[in-house]
Amino acid sequence: MSEVLKIFKIGGGIIDDPDQLRFFLGELARVGGKKILVHGGGKGANELLASLGMLPNMINGRRITDAVTLDVVTMFYAGKTNKQIVALLQQAGVNALGLSGADGNVIRASKRPVGEVDYGFVGDLQKQNIHTDFIELLLGGNLMPVFCAITHDGHGQLLNTNADTIASTLARALAGRYQVELHFCFEKDGVLADVNDESSVIPQITPTLYAALKARGTIAAGMLPKLDNAFAALDEGVAKVIIENALKINEPVKTIVCRA
Amino acid sequence: MSEVLKIFKIGGGIIDDPDQLRFFLGELARVGGKKILVHGGGKGANELLASLGMLPNMINGRRITDAVTLDVVTMFYAGKTNKQIVALLQQAGVNALGLSGADGNVIRASKRPVGEVDYGFVGDLQKQNIHTDFIELLLGGNLMPVFCAITHDGHGQLLNTNADTIASTLARALAGRYQVELHFCFEKDGVLADVNDESSVIPQITPTLYAALKARGTIAAGMLPKLDNAFAALDEGVAKVIIENALKINEPVKTIVCRA
Repeated sequence: MSEVLKIFKIGGGIIDDPDQLRFFLGELARVGGKKILVHGGGKGANELLASLGMLPNMINGRRITDAVTLDVVTMFYAGKTNKQIVALLQQAGVNALGLSGADGNVIRASKRPVGEVDYGFVGDLQKQNIHTDFIELLLGGNLMPVFCAITHDGHGQLLNTNADTIASTLARALAGRYQVELHFCFEKDGVLADVNDESSVIPQITPTLYAALKARGTIAAGMLPKLDNAFAALDEGVAKVIIENALKINEPVKTIVCRA
Repeated sequence: MSEVLKIFKIGGGIIDDPDQLRFFLGELARVGGKKILVHGGGKGANELLASLGMLPNMINGRRITDAVTLDVVTMFYAGKTNKQIVALLQQAGVNALGLSGADGNVIRASKRPVGEVDYGFVGDLQKQNIHTDFIELLLGGNLMPVFCAITHDGHGQLLNTNADTIASTLARALAGRYQVELHFCFEKDGVLADVNDESSVIPQITPTLYAALKARGTIAAGMLPKLDNAFAALDEGVAKVIIENALKINEPVKTIVCRA
């Protein structure tokens, strides 16, 4: 059996709360074995844009990344947030290494083609464009890669890229080399059978149960794309997808998405 | 004889000029063998501070790094500038990897003690706190480390750190493992015998010549600390210090500082 690799993804909510972020990173330090962290953005980039007199350019809840926005998100995600996380992990005794996709050419993306909407400098990913040898070199050197949501196109252009997509593409690309556990950490304890009952966490979701839950219509709409992506990852060799509370990663309550 | 390692340091002037920066990085891509780049800041951080309604806090030409300034320089140096340089080097075919001192714990600094002046979140360096094994791992993996001027203290605090000091401390720390050439790249062709004559580049400066030049008082005052640092680096095993034009690194005109 190949070695276990745990890939954790955290979102903006926890990044915006310094105490929660510090707590999460301390818990992450206690997780044994090989691990990777992928972090999203948080509100800071929008606040910085606002301070510069610019409103974030959004269409259907998705950010349009024009040139100034790209500069600001690069500064915020790859600069401030990534380096703060790395410094806090070092404090917690983890030899973390911050990465954008340009570093070591680790994630080469392609600029999203302009369709009905021009999303601007946004990167789309394919798993064959993940430089897995480099990630193995780092993991073999007992380093913990910490990815921000910035990639590049190999032609000198940085690209803003969805952090969930980075996490799941890394998981799929590395599934051949490690037994990959993909952990989506957020503010709830897992997938809830009843969105109004925080204690209704479903401990395990298989394809059969997922079909039944969807038919019943009880799962929160925002959770459906996450679960669809989770099953897609399992189809490509990821061992488990875990949906859990970022503040309870070392506690047993969580949802494990698995094949059977 | 151990392998040659070339450490290049570039300053703010070239970083502020996108065409010159791109040209320099293209020339750097043509330099063979193992190499490291250290880059300074440029005006962008001050411009961003000004956009946020803050004036840079300076005493005797040195920046005071308060908490907001630290955030801004971290965003600018470790985020925007570092990632742009890495993306452009990747485009030029160099497998560059951007680093702050926190990444891989590669440079652990100590916050400068408060004396007559409190410089704020500024890091001082000692060569034994350079993690040379990690740098060897990267160089052995055919990666080119690209350092920004941000370090950390190992206790979760990022620190603003002079880029010349980072370059010379790296050179001294790595001198036992490589035959290190330390290249200080700036806007002139080398050390001038006559500050008013751009063609008066001194091709080689030994300690004897340096003493004579200082006695004559012809070397520009701003060059003296650079040369003092260069000889200090030679005393600690660095093979050569080269002072050259950032736009002419592959041309013969330059000043080589050496022991004899």
